[in-house]
Amino acid sequence: MTDLILTTFDWVPKTPRGYVRDIRVRWALEEAGLPYRVNSVPFRDRDAEHFSHQPFGQVPWLTDGDISIFESGAILLHLGELSDKLMPAEPHGRSDVKQWLFAALASVEAASQPWSFFKFSGDTEETQMRKFFDAFLEARLKHMETVFAGREWLAGSFSVADILMADVLRLVDRFDGLAAYPACRDYVACATARPSFVKAHTDQMAHFAAAD
Amino acid sequence: MTDLILTTFDWVPKTPRGYVRDIRVRWALEEAGLPYRVNSVPFRDRDAEHFSHQPFGQVPWLTDGDISIFESGAILLHLGELSDKLMPAEPHGRSDVKQWLFAALASVEAASQPWSFFKFSGDTEETQMRKFFDAFLEARLKHMETVFAGREWLAGSFSVADILMADVLRLVDRFDGLAAYPACRDYVACATARPSFVKAHTDQMAHFAAAD
Repeated sequence: MTDLILTTFDWVPKTPRGYVRDIRVRWALEEAGLPYRVNSVPFRDRDAEHFSHQPFGQVPWLTDGDISIFESGAILLHLGELSDKLMPAEPHGRSDVKQWLFAALASVEAASQPWSFFKFSGDTEETQMRKFFDAFLEARLKHMETVFAGREWLAGSFSVADILMADVLRLVDRFDGLAAYPACRDYVACATARPSFVKAHTDQMAHFAAAD
Repeated sequence: MTDLILTTFDWVPKTPRGYVRDIRVRWALEEAGLPYRVNSVPFRDRDAEHFSHQPFGQVPWLTDGDISIFESGAILLHLGELSDKLMPAEPHGRSDVKQWLFAALASVEAASQPWSFFKFSGDTEETQMRKFFDAFLEARLKHMETVFAGREWLAGSFSVADILMADVLRLVDRFDGLAAYPACRDYVACATARPSFVKAHTDQMAHFAAAD
Protein backbone atom coordinates (compact mmCIF):
# COMPACT_ATOMS: atom_id res chain seq x y z
CA MET A 1 0.00 0.00 0.00
CA THR A 2 1.17 3.51 -0.81
CA ASP A 3 1.43 6.22 1.80
CA LEU A 4 -1.81 8.00 2.65
CA ILE A 5 -1.13 11.66 3.40
CA LEU A 6 -3.82 13.92 4.86
CA THR A 7 -3.23 17.63 4.35
CA THR A 8 -4.80 20.21 6.67
CA PHE A 9 -4.03 23.74 7.83
CA ASP A 10 -1.04 24.43 10.10
CA TRP A 11 -3.26 26.49 12.40
CA VAL A 12 -6.85 27.75 12.64
CA PRO A 13 -8.58 30.15 15.09
CA LYS A 14 -10.04 28.63 18.27
CA THR A 15 -13.73 28.64 17.18
CA PRO A 16 -13.52 26.03 14.37
CA ARG A 17 -11.12 23.74 16.24
CA GLY A 18 -12.58 20.29 16.66
CA TYR A 19 -14.80 20.95 13.62
CA VAL A 20 -12.29 21.40 10.77
CA ARG A 21 -13.24 18.88 8.12
CA ASP A 22 -9.98 16.99 8.30
CA ILE A 23 -11.63 15.32 11.32
CA ARG A 24 -13.86 13.35 8.94
CA VAL A 25 -10.78 11.92 7.23
CA ARG A 26 -8.85 11.30 10.47
CA TRP A 27 -11.91 9.50 11.88
CA ALA A 28 -12.20 7.20 8.86
CA LEU A 29 -8.47 6.44 8.81
CA GLU A 30 -8.52 5.60 12.53
CA GLU A 31 -11.67 3.51 12.17
CA ALA A 32 -10.09 1.43 9.39
CA GLY A 33 -6.67 1.29 11.02
CA LEU A 34 -5.07 2.60 7.83
CA PRO A 35 -1.58 4.09 8.37
CA TYR A 36 -1.30 7.78 7.39
CA ARG A 37 0.72 10.92 7.85
CA VAL A 38 -0.55 14.47 8.41
CA ASN A 39 0.89 17.30 6.35
CA SER A 40 0.27 21.03 7.01
CA VAL A 41 -0.21 24.02 4.72
CA PRO A 42 -0.36 27.66 5.85
CA PHE A 43 -3.78 28.92 6.94
CA ARG A 44 -2.77 32.51 6.22
CA ASP A 45 -0.91 32.36 2.92
CA ARG A 46 -2.45 29.88 0.53
CA ASP A 47 -0.23 29.42 -2.51
CA ALA A 48 -0.69 28.05 -6.04
CA GLU A 49 0.39 24.57 -4.92
CA HIS A 50 -2.46 24.60 -2.36
CA PHE A 51 -5.01 25.62 -5.03
CA SER A 52 -3.71 22.92 -7.38
CA HIS A 53 -4.87 20.34 -4.80
CA GLN A 54 -7.95 22.16 -3.49
CA PRO A 55 -9.33 24.69 -6.00
CA PHE A 56 -11.32 26.58 -3.32
CA GLY A 57 -8.28 27.03 -1.09
CA GLN A 58 -9.75 24.90 1.68
CA VAL A 59 -8.77 21.70 3.48
CA PRO A 60 -8.57 18.74 3.67
CA TRP A 61 -7.15 16.86 0.77
CA LEU A 62 -5.76 13.34 0.67
CA THR A 63 -2.96 11.96 -1.46
CA ASP A 64 -2.82 8.23 -2.13
CA GLY A 65 0.29 7.63 -4.22
CA ASP A 66 -0.09 9.88 -7.27
CA ILE A 67 -3.83 10.45 -6.75
CA SER A 68 -4.84 13.68 -4.97
CA ILE A 69 -8.45 14.05 -3.80
CA PHE A 70 -10.29 17.02 -2.28
CA GLU A 71 -13.83 17.20 -0.83
CA SER A 72 -14.39 15.29 2.40
CA GLY A 73 -17.21 13.26 0.79
CA ALA A 74 -14.98 12.14 -2.09
CA ILE A 75 -12.14 11.29 0.28
CA LEU A 76 -14.46 9.22 2.45
CA LEU A 77 -15.71 7.37 -0.64
CA HIS A 78 -12.11 6.65 -1.64
CA LEU A 79 -11.28 5.34 1.84
CA GLY A 80 -14.48 3.28 1.82
CA GLU A 81 -13.16 1.55 -1.27
CA LEU A 82 -9.93 0.70 0.60
CA SER A 83 -11.48 -0.93 3.68
CA ASP A 84 -14.55 -3.07 4.38
CA LYS A 85 -14.59 -1.50 7.86
CA LEU A 86 -15.75 1.67 6.12
CA MET A 87 -18.00 0.30 3.36
CA PRO A 88 -19.48 -3.20 3.05
CA ALA A 89 -18.48 -5.43 0.11
CA GLU A 90 -22.05 -6.34 -0.81
CA PRO A 91 -23.59 -4.25 -3.68
CA HIS A 92 -26.78 -3.11 -1.88
CA GLY A 93 -24.79 -2.00 1.15
CA ARG A 94 -22.27 -0.15 -1.02
CA SER A 95 -25.05 1.63 -2.86
CA ASP A 96 -26.67 2.60 0.46
CA VAL A 97 -23.40 4.01 1.77
CA LYS A 98 -22.91 6.09 -1.37
CA GLN A 99 -26.41 7.56 -1.34
CA TRP A 100 -26.12 8.48 2.33
CA LEU A 101 -22.71 10.10 1.75
CA PHE A 102 -24.41 12.38 -0.76
CA ALA A 103 -27.50 12.82 1.44
CA ALA A 104 -25.41 13.91 4.44
CA LEU A 105 -24.01 16.75 2.35
CA ALA A 106 -26.70 17.65 -0.20
CA SER A 107 -29.80 17.09 1.93
CA VAL A 108 -28.71 17.63 5.55
CA GLU A 109 -25.62 19.86 5.50
CA ALA A 110 -27.20 21.95 2.72
CA ALA A 111 -29.78 22.90 5.35
CA SER A 112 -27.60 22.88 8.47
CA GLN A 113 -24.79 25.00 7.04
CA PRO A 114 -26.84 28.17 6.32
CA TRP A 115 -28.52 27.68 9.71
CA SER A 116 -25.12 27.45 11.40
CA PHE A 117 -23.94 30.63 9.63
CA PHE A 118 -26.82 32.49 11.29
CA LYS A 119 -25.80 30.98 14.64
CA PHE A 120 -22.11 31.84 14.19
CA SER A 121 -23.01 35.41 13.17
CA GLY A 122 -24.71 36.03 16.50
CA ASP A 123 -27.44 37.76 14.48
CA THR A 124 -30.77 37.03 16.17
CA GLU A 125 -33.03 39.22 14.05
CA GLU A 126 -36.18 37.27 13.14
CA THR A 127 -36.22 38.06 9.44
CA GLN A 128 -38.40 36.21 6.94
CA MET A 129 -35.30 34.49 5.51
CA ARG A 130 -34.07 33.41 8.90
CA LYS A 131 -37.42 31.75 9.56
CA PHE A 132 -37.16 30.09 6.17
CA PHE A 133 -33.71 28.60 6.92
CA ASP A 134 -34.84 27.47 10.39
CA ALA A 135 -37.80 25.68 8.81
CA PHE A 136 -35.57 24.18 6.09
CA LEU A 137 -33.36 22.52 8.71
CA GLU A 138 -36.32 21.45 10.87
CA ALA A 139 -37.85 19.64 7.88
CA ARG A 140 -34.65 17.68 7.25
CA LEU A 141 -34.18 16.80 10.94
CA LYS A 142 -37.77 15.62 11.20
CA HIS A 143 -37.15 13.12 8.41
CA MET A 144 -33.77 12.05 9.85
CA GLU A 145 -35.49 11.44 13.18
CA THR A 146 -37.75 8.91 11.41
CA VAL A 147 -34.72 7.32 9.69
CA PHE A 148 -32.87 6.84 13.00
CA ALA A 149 -35.95 5.52 14.77
CA GLY A 150 -35.64 2.43 12.57
CA ARG A 151 -31.91 1.77 12.54
CA GLU A 152 -28.65 2.17 14.45
CA TRP A 153 -26.46 3.10 11.45
CA LEU A 154 -27.43 4.42 8.02
CA ALA A 155 -26.38 1.47 5.87
CA GLY A 156 -26.62 -1.67 8.01
CA SER A 157 -23.24 -1.48 9.73
CA PHE A 158 -21.14 1.56 10.69
CA SER A 159 -19.65 3.15 7.55
CA VAL A 160 -18.17 6.34 6.13
CA ALA A 161 -21.75 7.54 5.63
CA ASP A 162 -22.13 7.60 9.44
CA ILE A 163 -18.86 9.48 9.84
CA LEU A 164 -20.12 12.16 7.49
CA MET A 165 -23.71 12.34 8.79
CA ALA A 166 -22.62 12.33 12.44
CA ASP A 167 -20.10 15.09 11.79
CA VAL A 168 -22.74 17.19 10.04
CA LEU A 169 -25.24 16.70 12.89
CA ARG A 170 -22.56 17.27 15.53
CA LEU A 171 -22.31 20.92 14.46
CA VAL A 172 -26.10 21.27 14.78
CA ASP A 173 -25.86 19.76 18.25
CA ARG A 174 -23.15 22.29 19.17
CA PHE A 175 -25.80 25.02 18.87
CA ASP A 176 -28.39 22.83 20.62
CA GLY A 177 -30.32 22.32 17.37
CA LEU A 178 -31.07 18.65 18.12
CA ALA A 179 -32.99 19.27 21.36
CA ALA A 180 -36.30 18.27 19.73
CA TYR A 181 -34.73 15.29 17.92
CA PRO A 182 -33.67 12.69 20.48
CA ALA A 183 -32.91 9.95 17.94
CA CYS A 184 -30.59 12.31 16.03
CA ARG A 185 -28.91 13.31 19.29
CA ASP A 186 -28.47 9.69 20.38
CA TYR A 187 -27.02 8.86 16.97
CA VAL A 188 -24.42 11.63 17.31
CA ALA A 189 -23.63 10.49 20.86
CA CYS A 190 -23.13 6.85 19.79
CA ALA A 191 -21.00 7.79 16.79
CA THR A 192 -18.78 10.21 18.67
CA ALA A 193 -18.28 7.75 21.56
CA ARG A 194 -16.29 5.51 19.21
CA PRO A 195 -12.56 5.42 20.07
CA SER A 196 -11.77 6.35 16.44
CA PHE A 197 -13.65 9.65 16.79
CA VAL A 198 -12.10 10.41 20.18
CA LYS A 199 -8.61 9.82 18.74
CA ALA A 200 -9.35 11.94 15.63
CA HIS A 201 -10.72 14.79 17.74
CA THR A 202 -7.82 14.70 20.21
CA ASP A 203 -5.32 14.65 17.34
CA GLN A 204 -6.96 17.61 15.56
CA MET A 205 -7.04 19.68 18.75
CA ALA A 206 -3.37 18.85 19.46
CA HIS A 207 -2.35 19.61 15.88
CA PHE A 208 -3.73 23.15 15.98
CA ALA A 209 -2.68 23.80 19.60
CA ALA A 210 0.91 22.92 18.68
CA ALA A 211 1.00 25.97 16.38
CA ASP A 212 -0.28 28.50 18.93
CA MET B 1 -29.12 -5.21 -18.37
CA THR B 2 -32.02 -4.69 -16.00
CA ASP B 3 -34.57 -1.93 -16.52
CA LEU B 4 -33.57 1.51 -15.32
CA ILE B 5 -36.58 3.34 -13.92
CA LEU B 6 -36.42 7.04 -13.04
CA THR B 7 -39.12 8.22 -10.64
CA THR B 8 -40.19 11.86 -10.51
CA PHE B 9 -43.30 13.82 -9.53
CA ASP B 10 -46.47 13.57 -11.63
CA TRP B 11 -46.74 17.37 -11.64
CA VAL B 12 -45.00 20.43 -10.20
CA PRO B 13 -45.88 24.17 -10.25
CA LYS B 14 -44.63 26.21 -13.23
CA THR B 15 -41.67 27.92 -11.46
CA PRO B 16 -39.47 24.84 -10.87
CA ARG B 17 -40.24 23.27 -14.26
CA GLY B 18 -37.06 22.73 -16.23
CA TYR B 19 -35.10 22.70 -12.95
CA VAL B 20 -36.51 19.65 -11.12
CA ARG B 21 -33.55 17.44 -10.30
CA ASP B 22 -34.76 14.51 -12.37
CA ILE B 23 -33.25 16.51 -15.26
CA ARG B 24 -29.77 15.55 -14.03
CA VAL B 25 -30.67 11.88 -14.31
CA ARG B 26 -32.49 12.23 -17.66
CA TRP B 27 -29.47 14.11 -19.02
CA ALA B 28 -27.02 11.37 -17.99
CA LEU B 29 -29.25 8.58 -19.32
CA GLU B 30 -29.60 10.38 -22.66
CA GLU B 31 -25.87 11.13 -22.83
CA ALA B 32 -25.01 7.46 -22.29
CA GLY B 33 -27.82 6.15 -24.49
CA LEU B 34 -29.02 3.93 -21.66
CA PRO B 35 -32.65 2.77 -22.07
CA TYR B 36 -34.96 3.85 -19.24
CA ARG B 37 -38.55 4.40 -18.24
CA VAL B 38 -40.04 7.31 -16.28
CA ASN B 39 -42.38 6.60 -13.40
CA SER B 40 -44.47 9.23 -11.57
CA VAL B 41 -45.46 9.69 -7.93
CA PRO B 42 -47.95 12.27 -6.63
CA PHE B 43 -46.55 15.71 -5.87
CA ARG B 44 -49.40 16.44 -3.48
CA ASP B 45 -49.85 13.24 -1.47
CA ARG B 46 -46.53 11.59 -0.69
CA ASP B 47 -47.10 8.16 0.82
CA ALA B 48 -45.01 5.72 2.86
CA GLU B 49 -43.86 3.95 -0.32
CA HIS B 50 -42.43 7.27 -1.56
CA PHE B 51 -40.57 7.84 1.73
CA SER B 52 -39.20 4.29 1.63
CA HIS B 53 -37.34 5.25 -1.57
CA GLN B 54 -36.60 8.90 -0.74
CA PRO B 55 -36.58 9.58 3.02
CA PHE B 56 -37.01 13.36 2.55
CA GLY B 57 -40.08 12.94 0.34
CA GLN B 58 -38.34 14.44 -2.68
CA VAL B 59 -37.45 13.27 -6.19
CA PRO B 60 -35.76 11.78 -8.14
CA TRP B 61 -34.86 8.24 -7.34
CA LEU B 62 -33.61 5.53 -9.67
CA THR B 63 -34.23 1.82 -9.54
CA ASP B 64 -31.79 -0.53 -11.25
CA GLY B 65 -33.16 -4.03 -10.76
CA ASP B 66 -33.55 -4.46 -7.00
CA ILE B 67 -31.32 -1.48 -6.13
CA SER B 68 -33.09 1.81 -5.36
CA ILE B 69 -30.98 5.00 -5.14
CA PHE B 70 -31.91 8.53 -4.11
CA GLU B 71 -29.81 11.75 -4.23
CA SER B 72 -28.99 13.02 -7.71
CA GLY B 73 -25.24 12.87 -6.96
CA ALA B 74 -25.42 9.20 -5.95
CA ILE B 75 -27.56 8.35 -8.98
CA LEU B 76 -25.07 10.07 -11.30
CA LEU B 77 -22.22 8.14 -9.67
CA HIS B 78 -24.14 4.90 -10.22
CA LEU B 79 -24.78 5.75 -13.89
CA GLY B 80 -21.12 6.75 -14.29
CA GLU B 81 -20.20 3.23 -13.24
CA LEU B 82 -22.49 1.85 -15.98
CA SER B 83 -21.08 3.82 -18.92
CA ASP B 84 -17.65 5.12 -19.96
CA LYS B 85 -19.47 7.97 -21.72
CA LEU B 86 -20.24 9.28 -18.23
CA MET B 87 -17.03 8.41 -16.34
CA PRO B 88 -13.64 7.41 -17.76
CA ALA B 89 -12.22 3.95 -17.05
CA GLU B 90 -8.80 5.22 -15.99
CA PRO B 91 -8.30 5.58 -12.18
CA HIS B 92 -7.15 9.23 -12.11
CA GLY B 93 -10.05 10.29 -14.29
CA ARG B 94 -12.53 8.33 -12.14
CA SER B 95 -11.18 9.93 -8.99
CA ASP B 96 -11.46 13.39 -10.57
CA VAL B 97 -15.07 12.77 -11.59
CA LYS B 98 -15.96 11.66 -8.06
CA GLN B 99 -14.35 14.64 -6.34
CA TRP B 100 -16.07 17.07 -8.72
CA LEU B 101 -19.44 15.36 -8.18
CA PHE B 102 -19.04 16.12 -4.48
CA ALA B 103 -17.63 19.60 -5.14
CA ALA B 104 -20.58 20.56 -7.35
CA LEU B 105 -22.89 19.86 -4.41
CA ALA B 106 -20.87 20.53 -1.23
CA SER B 107 -18.78 23.48 -2.44
CA VAL B 108 -20.82 25.18 -5.19
CA GLU B 109 -24.49 24.29 -4.61
CA ALA B 110 -23.97 24.72 -0.86
CA ALA B 111 -23.36 28.39 -1.69
CA SER B 112 -25.72 28.82 -4.65
CA GLN B 113 -28.75 27.24 -3.01
CA PRO B 114 -29.10 29.71 -0.09
CA TRP B 115 -28.42 32.54 -2.56
CA SER B 116 -31.16 31.24 -4.86
CA PHE B 117 -33.60 31.02 -1.91
CA PHE B 118 -33.11 34.77 -1.40
CA LYS B 119 -33.72 35.32 -5.12
CA PHE B 120 -36.84 33.14 -5.18
CA SER B 121 -38.21 34.89 -2.08
CA GLY B 122 -38.21 38.24 -3.87
CA ASP B 123 -36.81 39.67 -0.62
CA THR B 124 -34.34 42.42 -1.52
CA GLU B 125 -33.58 43.71 1.97
CA GLU B 126 -29.80 44.21 2.31
CA THR B 127 -29.36 42.46 5.64
CA GLN B 128 -25.97 41.46 7.02
CA MET B 129 -26.77 37.78 6.35
CA ARG B 130 -27.81 38.46 2.79
CA LYS B 131 -24.48 40.14 2.14
CA PHE B 132 -22.77 37.15 3.73
CA PHE B 133 -24.52 34.66 1.42
CA ASP B 134 -23.83 36.84 -1.64
CA ALA B 135 -20.13 36.91 -0.74
CA PHE B 136 -20.14 33.15 -0.08
CA LEU B 137 -21.35 32.43 -3.62
CA GLU B 138 -19.04 35.06 -5.17
CA ALA B 139 -16.03 33.38 -3.55
CA ARG B 140 -16.96 30.00 -5.00
CA LEU B 141 -17.66 31.40 -8.48
CA LYS B 142 -14.36 33.27 -8.48
CA HIS B 143 -12.53 29.98 -7.95
CA MET B 144 -14.67 28.14 -10.52
CA GLU B 145 -13.83 30.89 -13.02
CA THR B 146 -10.15 30.02 -12.57
CA VAL B 147 -10.90 26.31 -12.94
CA PHE B 148 -12.77 26.81 -16.23
CA ALA B 149 -10.13 29.16 -17.61
CA GLY B 150 -7.82 26.15 -17.80
CA ARG B 151 -10.12 23.39 -19.10
CA GLU B 152 -13.23 22.63 -21.14
CA TRP B 153 -14.65 19.94 -18.83
CA LEU B 154 -13.96 19.21 -15.17
CA ALA B 155 -12.28 15.81 -15.50
CA GLY B 156 -10.65 15.66 -18.93
CA SER B 157 -13.66 14.59 -20.99
CA PHE B 158 -17.36 15.34 -20.47
CA SER B 159 -18.69 13.35 -17.49
CA VAL B 160 -21.46 13.15 -14.89
CA ALA B 161 -19.48 15.75 -12.91
CA ASP B 162 -20.19 18.25 -15.71
CA ILE B 163 -23.87 17.33 -15.74
CA LEU B 164 -24.08 18.11 -12.03
CA MET B 165 -21.90 21.24 -12.04
CA ALA B 166 -23.61 22.69 -15.13
CA ASP B 167 -27.04 22.07 -13.64
CA VAL B 168 -26.02 23.79 -10.40
CA LEU B 169 -24.59 26.80 -12.26
CA ARG B 170 -27.57 26.92 -14.64
CA LEU B 171 -29.82 27.96 -11.74
CA VAL B 172 -27.35 30.73 -10.83
CA ASP B 173 -27.43 31.85 -14.46
CA ARG B 174 -31.25 31.92 -14.35
CA PHE B 175 -30.99 34.81 -11.86
CA ASP B 176 -28.14 36.39 -13.85
CA GLY B 177 -25.61 35.47 -11.18
CA LEU B 178 -22.90 34.55 -13.70
CA ALA B 179 -22.70 38.00 -15.35
CA ALA B 180 -19.26 38.65 -13.87
CA TYR B 181 -18.04 35.11 -14.60
CA PRO B 182 -17.80 34.62 -18.37
CA ALA B 183 -15.96 31.28 -18.21
CA CYS B 184 -18.67 29.86 -15.93
CA ARG B 185 -21.36 31.20 -18.27
CA ASP B 186 -19.64 29.75 -21.35
CA TYR B 187 -19.33 26.41 -19.57
CA VAL B 188 -23.06 26.34 -18.85
CA ALA B 189 -23.80 27.34 -22.46
CA CYS B 190 -21.58 24.58 -23.90
CA ALA B 191 -22.97 21.92 -21.56
CA THR B 192 -26.61 22.82 -22.14
CA ALA B 193 -26.11 22.97 -25.93
CA ARG B 194 -25.54 19.20 -25.93
CA PRO B 195 -28.42 17.28 -27.57
CA SER B 196 -28.68 15.12 -24.43
CA PHE B 197 -29.51 18.17 -22.30
CA VAL B 198 -31.97 19.55 -24.85
CA LYS B 199 -33.78 16.19 -24.96
CA ALA B 200 -33.81 15.90 -21.15
CA HIS B 201 -35.16 19.43 -20.75
CA THR B 202 -37.83 18.98 -23.43
CA ASP B 203 -38.90 15.68 -21.87
CA GLN B 204 -39.16 17.16 -18.37
CA MET B 205 -41.23 20.10 -19.58
CA ALA B 206 -43.54 17.77 -21.53
CA HIS B 207 -43.88 15.40 -18.59
CA PHE B 208 -45.17 18.10 -16.25
CA ALA B 209 -47.23 19.86 -18.92
CA ALA B 210 -49.07 16.60 -19.64
CA ALA B 211 -50.50 16.71 -16.10
CA ASP B 212 -51.83 20.29 -16.25
